Amino acid sequence: MEFFDTICSISTPQGVGALAVIRVSGKEAFEITSKLFKDANDFKVMLSHFVKRFDIYENDNLIDQVMVVKHFAPKTYTGEDVVEITCHGSIYIQQKIIELLLNNCARLAKAGEFSMRAFLNGKLDLPQAEAVMDLIESQSETAHLLAINQLRGGFSKRIKILRNQFVELAALMELELDFSEENVEFADHSQLLSLLRILKNEVTQLTESFKLGNVLKTGVPVAIIGKPNVGKSTLLNCLLKDDRAIVSHIPGTTRDTVEDNFTIDGVNFRLIDTAGIRLAEDEIETFGIERTFKAIDKADVILYLVDISETSLEEVEKELLFLENEIDFIRKKLIIVANKIDQLQELPLQFTKWNDYDIAFISAKRNVNIDDIRDLLMKHIDQQEITDTALLTNIRHYDIMLKIEEEINKIEDAYEQKITTDLIVIHINLILDYLGQITGEITTDELLNAVFGRFCIGK
Amino acid sequence: MEFFDTICSISTPQGVGALAVIRVSGKEAFEITSKLFKDANDFKVMLSHFVKRFDIYENDNLIDQVMVVKHFAPKTYTGEDVVEITCHGSIYIQQKIIELLLNNCARLAKAGEFSMRAFLNGKLDLPQAEAVMDLIESQSETAHLLAINQLRGGFSKRIKILRNQFVELAALMELELDFSEENVEFADHSQLLSLLRILKNEVTQLTESFKLGNVLKTGVPVAIIGKPNVGKSTLLNCLLKDDRAIVSHIPGTTRDTVEDNFTIDGVNFRLIDTAGIRLAEDEIETFGIERTFKAIDKADVILYLVDISETSLEEVEKELLFLENEIDFIRKKLIIVANKIDQLQELPLQFTKWNDYDIAFISAKRNVNIDDIRDLLMKHIDQQEITDTALLTNIRHYDIMLKIEEEINKIEDAYEQKITTDLIVIHINLILDYLGQITGEITTDELLNAVFGRFCIGK
Repeated sequence: MEFFDTICSISTPQGVGALAVIRVSGKEAFEITSKLFKDANDFKVMLSHFVKRFDIYENDNLIDQVMVVKHFAPKTYTGEDVVEITCHGSIYIQQKIIELLLNNCARLAKAGEFSMRAFLNGKLDLPQAEAVMDLIESQSETAHLLAINQLRGGFSKRIKILRNQFVELAALMELELDFSEENVEFADHSQLLSLLRILKNEVTQLTESFKLGNVLKTGVPVAIIGKPNVGKSTLLNCLLKDDRAIVSHIPGTTRDTVEDNFTIDGVNFRLIDTAGIRLAEDEIETFGIERTFKAIDKADVILYLVDISETSLEEVEKELLFLENEIDFIRKKLIIVANKIDQLQELPLQFTKWNDYDIAFISAKRNVNIDDIRDLLMKHIDQQEITDTALLTNIRHYDIMLKIEEEINKIEDAYEQKITTDLIVIHINLILDYLGQITGEITTDELLNAVFGRFCIGK
Repeated sequence: MEFFDTICSISTPQGVGALAVIRVSGKEAFEITSKLFKDANDFKVMLSHFVKRFDIYENDNLIDQVMVVKHFAPKTYTGEDVVEITCHGSIYIQQKIIELLLNNCARLAKAGEFSMRAFLNGKLDLPQAEAVMDLIESQSETAHLLAINQLRGGFSKRIKILRNQFVELAALMELELDFSEENVEFADHSQLLSLLRILKNEVTQLTESFKLGNVLKTGVPVAIIGKPNVGKSTLLNCLLKDDRAIVSHIPGTTRDTVEDNFTIDGVNFRLIDTAGIRLAEDEIETFGIERTFKAIDKADVILYLVDISETSLEEVEKELLFLENEIDFIRKKLIIVANKIDQLQELPLQFTKWNDYDIAFISAKRNVNIDDIRDLLMKHIDQQEITDTALLTNIRHYDIMLKIEEEINKIEDAYEQKITTDLIVIHINLILDYLGQITGEITTDELLNAVFGRFCIGK
């Protein structure tokens, strides 16, 4: 695929740094970039993959001394000629170089446009391109693992196998159609139906893996609930503090963007509505029933905090009964956190024996047994499944898989109602279409814009 | 100079981006980096300045697919072996690669440590190293021009010439000393004193250029003052808006960090205490005398805003009289901004003839004549001087030049008081020492830490 314009963009994070990288891609990439240098000929004769220093001038003003690499098509990220300019990371210089490239007829790249070209030039399939974005955005070990597996093609492979199986199914149907034209009726659809069942199982497995996959990618949502003054904000700080400390030992990588996230064994947990809890520190804390219910609604795991020095088992049971309508104990996990054990002589017997619930006995104030909460949180995550390379993590893929599931159901119904095979084939073709949309074999401008528009600038 | 440890750092701006660059410098740079790759031998045989793709693993987990360049000493920024790793710009990946380098015995670079090594290895002199930081931090064309001239050695050259002249002066004195030992008295110091006067003039010129140089580097401080409801916040928005629009057409380069700065013809203007003016929008505006005085104190230019539809010349004169003690009209420039001309039939005659002051007649609300303010602001800046390559812009250099000025004065006094030349030579030697401290020929750990500690991480 050939594009007529040459795109450029700052590819490193926004802001000031020692260095910044500007990328130019397109058939005029070398020609346009050469115009920034007085020693343009030195640039023109440069070999691929070789780093050389150049001076960038605007008229007679030196803008910067930069390092430049040419990457010859097609062995590049986009499949086109690519130039990488490493300049000093001042905002002025970054802007100026982009301005000079634009003045020489490069165009500013739209979000994800480099990756879109990589896809359209066959360098990546669509799930791999999507994995590039997930990789850049991954903030935890697990999210990173999922993205890198997808980038390596693990997921695409599984989808391709699935597609081949549906093609096989379609072939079986076509065979049947041929016979039916000859008015021979096949009473026995068994081979066909058994393949369909296998495929349905496969598809369901994938759609069901999305919940875990998505949660691992974006973080397991956790709510902390409880009456006023049971120690919610102290617990919040306990959970966040250690993690912050680990991160902040590497300067330049503060995690300001991931406020109120913490990581256990590489899995990211995302605390919900902590603003309410922080507010509580100003002594205007209320039980806030509506707020609590909203937090429960969004959470996968609920940390239900009680002040064990002042609460009886009966009171806890009463509160749980009250919350019961909100908490779907199959979909959501509840962990009872019995706080303020430092104010007790011994643990109350009736609690320790209360085995139906996961209970952690802690002192948030004295930072005692916080690891017990972490252990219980991790019980929620099936470590085995994480290493499964074909977890469904992308909502676009999930939406398509749901549609495929629907079509499979329609096929099953059709067979039950003995609808003629030629009508059933329509559903199979739809499924093949859908699978093609996942891998990108079938694309529309709308689909491409939806996928790549979510990318960051410069990728 | 040889360092025993190998340093590493993220060199691109903090945060998430398509790409990030990690640099490793030191004699173990190649050895340490090779341990990140399974195909370590491919890396070991790589030539200098050649880009190659590698996979970074932690145990058996693929962390990222990266592009790597080796730069062989001594032709590198630091003068040492340097590796540049361009990875995907996720925070997780950036952290992880740094972590792996640290695990393999690299050390995290301190702020400015790459540049400090460059200086100590003779790749840059001290003003050039300081210019690298100024270059990275420059936000306007003029600040950028000053930094790049200094980086190219223009300033260092001037200091070296100055130093040679003082050496010549010292030689003349030594000569005199030799004669004086022979008890021959030179009644005529004329050659010596005339050279001293030339040098004094040169030094004074430099110290006087600092005010402009510093202001061009950090931005000309501008205060907007005036009574409540004269339109200060509207004017503020006028001055900032256009500039924002220019900047924001290049995505990825928003100027969040330089709030309340605007640029005219490449010169940066920095608005002072605009928080107070913004606050005013909430109808709780007061004249805030103390606040106004503070703003005036910090400003070089004062935009004194009056509502011309409701203010007489007499009232303005009364207010100016009141402010007079605060405004040093030699050091500070006052621009009277007569706002709300849209509410007048014609301009009041007495104002237009009031020639002692710079006056702009505007309507901030209707965005009329705002350029007149810009023109008056630029009258304040001597364009000629900007192109002078040896403007003093660095406060460290300025402080040293002031000390040199002091020593010159002492020498003059000494000659007047006919103090013997051998005592005067002490002052000359001090001056030579001071000049050596500017160029970095004379350094102490304390000096180096002070200079390079102000750098950003990764440079």
